[in-house]
Amino acid sequence: MTSFAIIGHLARTDGAFSLNDLPGSGGRMDVLCRCVNAALFLSHDMRRDTDCYLILCGEPAGPKTVRFSGTAVRSLSPDERSAGALIKKALDIPVGSEFRDAAPGISVRKGGLFRLLSEQVFGVLDEKGSDIRSAETLPSAFILSDHLNLTREEESLLHQCPRYSVGPACLHADHAITVVHNELDRRMRQWK
Amino acid sequence: MTSFAIIGHLARTDGAFSLNDLPGSGGRMDVLCRCVNAALFLSHDMRRDTDCYLILCGEPAGPKTVRFSGTAVRSLSPDERSAGALIKKALDIPVGSEFRDAAPGISVRKGGLFRLLSEQVFGVLDEKGSDIRSAETLPSAFILSDHLNLTREEESLLHQCPRYSVGPACLHADHAITVVHNELDRRMRQWK
Repeated sequence: MTSFAIIGHLARTDGAFSLNDLPGSGGRMDVLCRCVNAALFLSHDMRRDTDCYLILCGEPAGPKTVRFSGTAVRSLSPDERSAGALIKKALDIPVGSEFRDAAPGISVRKGGLFRLLSEQVFGVLDEKGSDIRSAETLPSAFILSDHLNLTREEESLLHQCPRYSVGPACLHADHAITVVHNELDRRMRQWK
Repeated sequence: MTSFAIIGHLARTDGAFSLNDLPGSGGRMDVLCRCVNAALFLSHDMRRDTDCYLILCGEPAGPKTVRFSGTAVRSLSPDERSAGALIKKALDIPVGSEFRDAAPGISVRKGGLFRLLSEQVFGVLDEKGSDIRSAETLPSAFILSDHLNLTREEESLLHQCPRYSVGPACLHADHAITVVHNELDRRMRQWK
């Protein structure tokens, strides 16, 4: 089982954003939609062994966490708008502190990074971390930031997590997820 | 200089598609928009040394080729809709057989794979190819298909090109581009 968690610092926490303007009205929801795609899609298939957590920290009701579970998700297409529509639907239902299903494989709860870190052990994707290719073992859960740097409070919560870099270039979050999956695929199938 | 060329088998060749329905009305134009993103974007930066060619083969006037030149492109954002709007604009102008500028860094011409292969030497990204990690040298230009397999005619045009695989899993085109960039980044910066 592999997990990715992405912190969306400005990402809207209700459904009041437009699918025609995910970057603006959604608080860079486009970044998170691309991360869902990178985490879950294979060519003509899905990564049923992967979960993707979106930690939404924006207005008006943050933080909330939306979980896409590869094992159960249905009716998700690879385009940004498809993921955006499912996130919007999830954010429109009333929720408490436990995950509530919004659609098959998609659930939502109140709470963010602090809660998630109490439940899983994460490695942090960070350009200053150690190279994922040379790490002897890799964790099965990775956390990363959207287009903004981690805040001081987030850094403090994550300070004990090991840090991994995907390469010498500083990549978008979804591209980093793709590179991690490639490394995990190779290790699992014993490619060099 | 790195180039990626993506064959969009059903991709619309005029501007008569909706930005609200890139997959349907655009003939899976969403796939090509994500490839533009993967080819050109770094975190808070662009890959100015990369060109991305979209070979559009769909109705009504195919084939056409749209070129995004990283060195000159402006006003491109990472979301699918942004690339889609620029492609739509390029497809709306009258063109002949030579590239005509549609916007800074974005040009369009009639013609497709046959013409492009007469101008550059490409490696083909193909899950049955040799592993990019173990290849002693890699080409600087790669060609790949969208969500559909190469046609018999395309296979025939490409039969002399070397073939490379990005890993054991069969990936979406944009994910494959991201993995190739990662390998090229590592080789250029002498990461292991």
